[in-house]
Amino acid sequence: MISFKEAYGKVLDHKQDYGTEQIPLKIAMGRVLAEEVIADRDFPPFNRATKDGIAINYEAIVAGQTTFKLEGILPAGMAAKLLGNKEQAIEIMTGAVVPDNADAVVMYEHLVIENGWATLIKNPSKGQDIHIQGSDRKMGELVLQKNTRITASEIGILAAVGKSTLMVKKLPKTAIISTGNELVEVKEQPLPHQIRKSNIHTLFGALSQEGIVPGEYHLADDKEIIKKELATILNNYDVVLLSGGVSKGKYDYIPEVLEELGVEKVFHRVLQRPGKPFWFGVRPETGTIVFSFPGNPASTFANYQVYFKDWLRSSLGLPNPTISVILEEEIPIKGDLTQLLRVQLKLDNGQMLASQVKENGSGDLTSLALTDGFIVLDPEQEFYKAGESVPFVPTRQLL
Amino acid sequence: MISFKEAYGKVLDHKQDYGTEQIPLKIAMGRVLAEEVIADRDFPPFNRATKDGIAINYEAIVAGQTTFKLEGILPAGMAAKLLGNKEQAIEIMTGAVVPDNADAVVMYEHLVIENGWATLIKNPSKGQDIHIQGSDRKMGELVLQKNTRITASEIGILAAVGKSTLMVKKLPKTAIISTGNELVEVKEQPLPHQIRKSNIHTLFGALSQEGIVPGEYHLADDKEIIKKELATILNNYDVVLLSGGVSKGKYDYIPEVLEELGVEKVFHRVLQRPGKPFWFGVRPETGTIVFSFPGNPASTFANYQVYFKDWLRSSLGLPNPTISVILEEEIPIKGDLTQLLRVQLKLDNGQMLASQVKENGSGDLTSLALTDGFIVLDPEQEFYKAGESVPFVPTRQLL
Repeated sequence: MISFKEAYGKVLDHKQDYGTEQIPLKIAMGRVLAEEVIADRDFPPFNRATKDGIAINYEAIVAGQTTFKLEGILPAGMAAKLLGNKEQAIEIMTGAVVPDNADAVVMYEHLVIENGWATLIKNPSKGQDIHIQGSDRKMGELVLQKNTRITASEIGILAAVGKSTLMVKKLPKTAIISTGNELVEVKEQPLPHQIRKSNIHTLFGALSQEGIVPGEYHLADDKEIIKKELATILNNYDVVLLSGGVSKGKYDYIPEVLEELGVEKVFHRVLQRPGKPFWFGVRPETGTIVFSFPGNPASTFANYQVYFKDWLRSSLGLPNPTISVILEEEIPIKGDLTQLLRVQLKLDNGQMLASQVKENGSGDLTSLALTDGFIVLDPEQEFYKAGESVPFVPTRQLL
Repeated sequence: MISFKEAYGKVLDHKQDYGTEQIPLKIAMGRVLAEEVIADRDFPPFNRATKDGIAINYEAIVAGQTTFKLEGILPAGMAAKLLGNKEQAIEIMTGAVVPDNADAVVMYEHLVIENGWATLIKNPSKGQDIHIQGSDRKMGELVLQKNTRITASEIGILAAVGKSTLMVKKLPKTAIISTGNELVEVKEQPLPHQIRKSNIHTLFGALSQEGIVPGEYHLADDKEIIKKELATILNNYDVVLLSGGVSKGKYDYIPEVLEELGVEKVFHRVLQRPGKPFWFGVRPETGTIVFSFPGNPASTFANYQVYFKDWLRSSLGLPNPTISVILEEEIPIKGDLTQLLRVQLKLDNGQMLASQVKENGSGDLTSLALTDGFIVLDPEQEFYKAGESVPFVPTRQLL
């Protein structure tokens, strides 16, 4: 049995690189950028009017001029044009190219326009309401770094620089497997000694948020069947997540079958609760990574959140920042296990406050509905004080 | 022109109810539950062994017995069975039904088993390692409330109670429309006075995170074309998001055309920066809600995040909690506009600390890549002190 910290370190040591692929911008949300994105033009690409009004040359203002003959109109999307002379003005619309010999835009709100003449009712300043070419970014400058998670704002930037397709990190081909003869399908009415599958659906939902559509399997508690089916699955997937069959039971064949199939055990059993019988291994032959989680709902859920998510982020080149939250109550520590405690989070005046969810052990599925995440408590400490900050692993989107 | 607070209130006053629909569990992630979910059985549905070992009757322990004859084995998924007599024990696996006349499970780690007899090496306590029937939830009890956002943990609970299909809130049929003759497609090389479409892609990405796949349109700056196409769009969608064409420009036909098509203006222009020329209306004939955002990238983005997202949450029956963050630096307030300032967030020891992103006005798209959200600063305050907490609207997932 190894410590939680050691187990976490070993999982992250086995991060993989699944390479890159080209995808259309349309489906890039949530993916991780695998290329540096460069401004293909200046940002903005020309001196751009940021108000609707008139473009003028400031020399006329310095010379005391307050009324301007209008010589036409410049809509957005029209090719650049010069002022006919510096004493005249041209109407200009937001997004249009400011004439090269103009250096201020005066918005309609500060003008009276009559019979083709515009009179200023407020003194402009030089350069006002012009978004200067290249002032945000120059052509050739980096606009998005490699290894950036693509959210809505990155999508806009990618569109602006012409990335209709882009290189992103490939996601691992992932299988999820439920085990246990007590399990029946969701749509079935279980017999009194049976329960419905739930972990595999939780994992499917969680993975879908990472953009992963996993293959789904169920293995009966029969060693020969497990061996035959697992052999095929291990050949076909980059990552395999199992739920159940890793404890000390007579029918817990998973660890021995995995080893028979060439998966090398990195560790089995971690000094943590829930999720202690976690088995983790790698199969050198195919590079397959195997997360074999204990089958209690809170155990599978906690181990997925604590180990798998960070392993995936690392494998995609993303950082794994530690998030801390503040305890609302004192928590005494008993025993020698790292505790992954279910908490609710309150965001209050810029603080993240965690309070324990009442729960009933690792089999208690219903408590997970009240849970915003897990706090990670070290067994070497005697107790945690209220107000102390502790590491936190979110399990739902809170911000 | 109205205040930011007033505008926000008016948008939320126009929340809608788009009804409910039945969907398969498989695609329920992120949706909002439209029914109360009840436990169809006790949770757990039987006295369930939580360890692998033996089941015994505690009376034998009280009587001083430490060695038990093993009378067989109870795997998970096997129908309930009684102990033959209270002096014997039966091997039992995690997840199996504990015999009705047994009241403790002793795990293998605390046993020596030889020749069909088990000897205790540690004294058990009554009831240990049994997850009692109904101890998490009783049959008929509520396990998930209506109006709950479905995340991975809710998926597991829905599976466990047999919800292979479920009722969720319908999402509004949504159209997104770009406007402006300066815009070209992402894959095109723009002429010097043109730029590529970006807002519509940002909106598409942001909506996809809400589970909405919007219809996409572009309108040229031509009043007749706008009117003809908008008429059809308004008839076919619940919500229309426009970007651009709402300022004071000569070709900003959107507000007048919307009104000609029967969309009643709720407000136009808000005392805020960015996003001031925001036009918001409702069309009584079809119930269509129209968010017409100014076309600068930061304006569309901020208004989407600040108004539309909360309007959608309200329309789906979700609460809109105010999130506050702590300012890392003093910010002086000038002018009479509510400021939506771009900030980066640092999560530090349970605190959410916001620092301003260097930006270059509402046209600066590249700064949005550095932005975690907007803080909302009230113009009635003279300045905000470092350490003060202020309202925050996240624009990417931070927790």
